[in-house]
Amino acid sequence: METNRPLILVTNDDGIEAKGIRSLIEMVKPFGDVITVAPFHVHSGKSHAITVELPIRYRLLREYENVKVYGCTGTPVDSVKLAFSAILPRTPDLIVSGINHGSNASVSVVYSGTMGAVIEGCLNGIPSVGFSLLDFDPDADFSAAQQFGRKIVQHVLGEGLPDATCLNVNIPPVGMNEVKGIKVCRQARGVWREEFEKRLDPRKGEYYWLTGYFVNHENGATDTDEWALENNYISVVPVQVDFTNYRAMERLKIIQDD
Amino acid sequence: METNRPLILVTNDDGIEAKGIRSLIEMVKPFGDVITVAPFHVHSGKSHAITVELPIRYRLLREYENVKVYGCTGTPVDSVKLAFSAILPRTPDLIVSGINHGSNASVSVVYSGTMGAVIEGCLNGIPSVGFSLLDFDPDADFSAAQQFGRKIVQHVLGEGLPDATCLNVNIPPVGMNEVKGIKVCRQARGVWREEFEKRLDPRKGEYYWLTGYFVNHENGATDTDEWALENNYISVVPVQVDFTNYRAMERLKIIQDD
Repeated sequence: METNRPLILVTNDDGIEAKGIRSLIEMVKPFGDVITVAPFHVHSGKSHAITVELPIRYRLLREYENVKVYGCTGTPVDSVKLAFSAILPRTPDLIVSGINHGSNASVSVVYSGTMGAVIEGCLNGIPSVGFSLLDFDPDADFSAAQQFGRKIVQHVLGEGLPDATCLNVNIPPVGMNEVKGIKVCRQARGVWREEFEKRLDPRKGEYYWLTGYFVNHENGATDTDEWALENNYISVVPVQVDFTNYRAMERLKIIQDD
Repeated sequence: METNRPLILVTNDDGIEAKGIRSLIEMVKPFGDVITVAPFHVHSGKSHAITVELPIRYRLLREYENVKVYGCTGTPVDSVKLAFSAILPRTPDLIVSGINHGSNASVSVVYSGTMGAVIEGCLNGIPSVGFSLLDFDPDADFSAAQQFGRKIVQHVLGEGLPDATCLNVNIPPVGMNEVKGIKVCRQARGVWREEFEKRLDPRKGEYYWLTGYFVNHENGATDTDEWALENNYISVVPVQVDFTNYRAMERLKIIQDD
């Protein structure tokens, strides 16, 4: 690999064989040398989980043009940590994660393995961006995501990102000509309403499948990621890794002893 | 169980048999009826992970006085979701998680299963507090944590918490008389530096153990949780579940198309 081009780390949570990560590699390949380190298997909903009770293995799967692809037995965040510690020849210039099959807008940012990897990159001071397409189809069409994603990647490689901040980019499930453009948004307020589905195993033991649906608490607001996506915009939410609610600090001082 | 007393949901990430969760149950028992739903096994570092690829089971383990204790095969966040959907007789008045064996201060809030459960409670609109003691010993002394924790629980039950905000409480590993009091703080900036430890299995295959150490990037600051803990204060950080960096939105508008 050349050493004077940007070094780009690619990962995801749908696993190394997902169409989304192959689309993401193609998307960023023109900008620099690409090293991909991603889970062998699906790690949806793994958030910022790390593997502490088991060891991890990884292996080079393929190498072509300016691309190397490694699979790892850990989570998305493990993949980023392993890349830093054992695989990358130097600090990367950019980390991209995805393209996720399915939305990571609103509160899904909290559950998302895609965004877990992005937040890990950001904690390490690397400009980091997560991409998600609102389409769960394993054969989804990523062409609009790729076209608009390139614009975002070009900006981030050139200008960097605000301090301690990464990007959560979601793409509506429509064709390139129907995308109205990019909107910088805030995270919509909402919640996943769970409905555990009870079943019986062959020995009559009860077990439960987690299932549910998203409820948007802000159907009126027009500055949220959910609104942008419903209106065929690509949503870009700047995500901060300092979770402190500074405004709440003053009110809570009542529980201090002084 | 009585129905006119507060209903308190207890969970953790060290598993249902940890001393920390037994200490937490004792701590909150005087304030209301207690239902505990927690993982059977250790789920350290599981962050906000949910289980989507496997089903979940749970079972009532014991019942005494005003306490019921359920074990669950899922993560801490699964435990909270399952409690809401299948176990609790009504919406709880308070969710407490811990007492964790080890620190969840600074950026550890991102990796913490203890805080994952707390953030899940907060997303569902329930006042939620995580407690962590800076002592990994399975037989750690939780008496100071319990005494100061009761004060915090009493405040939260009486006054609630700021909108979309939960608490990350960490307790220094010292005796009750050495604790200087409670400090409301912000999350210190820092990072976990990883050093994957390479080993060989009996067939000479390489595997890696995740290990590392925390680096505090703000050794000078006196308003952080890390400073408070180093100085024998209990740290209370208000954690918000809206991760949007509002100040960054304006700067990023350059990538919009309009």
